[in-house]
Amino acid sequence: MNEQRKIVVIGCGAGGSTSAQFARKTDRKSIITIFDKEKYPQYSKCGLPYVISGDINQCNDLIEFTEDWYKKANIELNLNSDVINVDFQKKIVYAKKDDNKIEKKYDKLIIATGSKPVIPQIKNISRENKLYDGIFIFRTIDDAKKIEKYIKKNKNATIIGAGLIGLEMADALFKKGMNVNVIESLPKILTKTVDEDISKLISDRITKYIKLYTGYLAYEIEIKGGAIYKIYIENSLDSKKIAIETDLLILATGTKPFLSIFNQSDLKIGKTGGIIVNKKCETSIKNVYAVGDCTEYLDFITKKPINVGLGSIVVRQAITAGINASGGNQELQNGFLQTCTSEFFDLEVAAVGPSIENLKEFSILSAKYKGSSLPEYFPGGKPITIKITVNKKTGKIISAQAIGDKAAQRINTIACAMLNKMNIETFRKLETAYSPPIAPTLDVTTLVSDIIVKKINRNQ
Amino acid sequence: MNEQRKIVVIGCGAGGSTSAQFARKTDRKSIITIFDKEKYPQYSKCGLPYVISGDINQCNDLIEFTEDWYKKANIELNLNSDVINVDFQKKIVYAKKDDNKIEKKYDKLIIATGSKPVIPQIKNISRENKLYDGIFIFRTIDDAKKIEKYIKKNKNATIIGAGLIGLEMADALFKKGMNVNVIESLPKILTKTVDEDISKLISDRITKYIKLYTGYLAYEIEIKGGAIYKIYIENSLDSKKIAIETDLLILATGTKPFLSIFNQSDLKIGKTGGIIVNKKCETSIKNVYAVGDCTEYLDFITKKPINVGLGSIVVRQAITAGINASGGNQELQNGFLQTCTSEFFDLEVAAVGPSIENLKEFSILSAKYKGSSLPEYFPGGKPITIKITVNKKTGKIISAQAIGDKAAQRINTIACAMLNKMNIETFRKLETAYSPPIAPTLDVTTLVSDIIVKKINRNQ
Repeated sequence: MNEQRKIVVIGCGAGGSTSAQFARKTDRKSIITIFDKEKYPQYSKCGLPYVISGDINQCNDLIEFTEDWYKKANIELNLNSDVINVDFQKKIVYAKKDDNKIEKKYDKLIIATGSKPVIPQIKNISRENKLYDGIFIFRTIDDAKKIEKYIKKNKNATIIGAGLIGLEMADALFKKGMNVNVIESLPKILTKTVDEDISKLISDRITKYIKLYTGYLAYEIEIKGGAIYKIYIENSLDSKKIAIETDLLILATGTKPFLSIFNQSDLKIGKTGGIIVNKKCETSIKNVYAVGDCTEYLDFITKKPINVGLGSIVVRQAITAGINASGGNQELQNGFLQTCTSEFFDLEVAAVGPSIENLKEFSILSAKYKGSSLPEYFPGGKPITIKITVNKKTGKIISAQAIGDKAAQRINTIACAMLNKMNIETFRKLETAYSPPIAPTLDVTTLVSDIIVKKINRNQ
Repeated sequence: MNEQRKIVVIGCGAGGSTSAQFARKTDRKSIITIFDKEKYPQYSKCGLPYVISGDINQCNDLIEFTEDWYKKANIELNLNSDVINVDFQKKIVYAKKDDNKIEKKYDKLIIATGSKPVIPQIKNISRENKLYDGIFIFRTIDDAKKIEKYIKKNKNATIIGAGLIGLEMADALFKKGMNVNVIESLPKILTKTVDEDISKLISDRITKYIKLYTGYLAYEIEIKGGAIYKIYIENSLDSKKIAIETDLLILATGTKPFLSIFNQSDLKIGKTGGIIVNKKCETSIKNVYAVGDCTEYLDFITKKPINVGLGSIVVRQAITAGINASGGNQELQNGFLQTCTSEFFDLEVAAVGPSIENLKEFSILSAKYKGSSLPEYFPGGKPITIKITVNKKTGKIISAQAIGDKAAQRINTIACAMLNKMNIETFRKLETAYSPPIAPTLDVTTLVSDIIVKKINRNQ
């Protein structure tokens, strides 16, 4: 390509912005343009709960690259700019910025439109498509800024949804001195992330700090003076109804890919509602890439399509798409491991691979072990519980979850084993680093593996 | 075997005791006997510096299994018992306990005699084979108890040897308020563990707290009133001589396998001075196993014989030998990775694989990266420096070192990659767990891998 390559990126979140950066790194000469409907350049959405909690001073601290940075990188950044249509035939992106229409021709397009929160069907949640006062979704800096005004010590806050974000918010509001209720329609918390037994352990921990209503569906909101006053919930099993007074309601009931602008196009959308992408982050349309929460990709273990909103996946896709759009040739591994972690109520939680519920087609074998981060004789050891699940036939590790000390780093090691399709028999031979103030001679990851190996041998 | 199997274990350190335990677990009926010359049952030698520092209350806290435990496990434990000879033909162990001679017939023998400290050749270090007052080796509970009496605030302590144990002791004595000098004859510290650049980073850190004399050989000790008063050292390069007043001298100049009782036997000893063992921990003599610091085994990467005193290796050998001696069939992986860690002066250090000096036959490529444990926007991130070395031809990871936050756990992940003979190109695709308070989207392990991949691509 002798001419300058024109790359257009829709979205300036972690996905779009990282794509643009890597496109720039790969080709210094290309013309790169980003459109984003928000007014801020790339910032960490995952960091928002920590602004609420006070761990991070202010929302603006989350901005990872300033507008000036894009200028210096010679990337044209259009904020406050809604992309309204893409003509994939003519290769033109149509956007609107302050009533001005922009047409941008592209050679390569990267779609990184992200996802939007799902608003649950609850009576009186909104009026004229606007949520009542005190009721919030939680996705952007502007959402966080609005919520901050409603945070008051000893007042009641309620969160619908006990996924990772719901629980991070519960912790944040608890730290601010609020009385926190969490409502979850499913019978357990963190259904997408961990198995039932691990979920139970986490519930036991967090209910010391907050009220948890699992198996309850929110069905009605009572409004007083234009703002939320009570939320009514109903138990799915026994139909028991409870009214919860609340000054603040946060909806953390998941997201779905934000793709309305492509409704009329040939862009292939998968079962999960995300744009289908391959290992190169290519979509079904030539010269069009997609990355992040708006995409659908394969689970590494089951090879089934998934769409999980993990920053670690977004960034890795973005690097790949950015490099490829600039003429490089990068491939992701064959599916995502979904390594993830979070921390709330001083508990570190981490997981890799599908939870057991998503492994129904596998014959599986699991073991769980609770140990200490340090040798018994060394003071200050912290509890760590780890669970590993293997394919019963092959012995290959297909899922792992951990709670407690350095859970995330321990899960990273198991993720590495999974990426290598490692057998538990070999994994247990891994020499882990030992030193009395750091780790025991046999780490919990080894001890739990030993239990599985014994179970396998007993079954043979 | 219809009769009860007779298993004799020489040594009740981590190696011998763990072997006995796993022999017992594997076969409930066997007759198991342990001999050890010390008066304590299995205790953590690695924990001794932390008794000195005060992190652990007293030496006896290090005892991991009481004499009562062995009784309950039906293991005959003979403490204060010197094994004086083994007749490998007749399969008899001869021991001496309080002037009583014991003869013990065995079907399977496990040798776990450990190692003994090397006493450096220094003028006036000892009289009649006894070290002068104030001069100590550091290997056993009794050594630690003797040293404890010499610890006095604001007095001078000197350590010869800047390996892991030397530096752990330096930290311990510093914590006790002593002025600490460390003398190392080699030009850098931690020569066996890390490369020159990483060694330099660690030196820069610890010289804030202690005086470090690298490249200095101790040649003479001045005695006053029967105890050490001064130590004289000489620079290997410029012959500069220095006299250091010291009240306490600790010799941490390494160890060698303790095998004098086998001098006249056919037991095959390797180049490193350790008993040659295979993946099953079998020695050259039938029915005789050996484990721990008295053995020689292969390095996983170079496949050369090594003898490193790591507890993580000892325990894994011991489990294997114990199970095999009881009729099981266990194999270790094909060589040891030497994953190791330590902590001193609030710095966590970890490494896996040989240092570059031991990789001279490889064409190598390295990269080092200093990053933060957390995303930039999250307060409290701690520095972490990581170095990875790959085989230039194959791209396979062959060595890694880290200093800083969770260095050990990060090295464990790389150890897992090495055990899988993983290519750096694939390793960098590993999804590491991300959450703002725990780790950035791209961990330092990923970022350093990216640098190496770029170097490889540039070289092609």
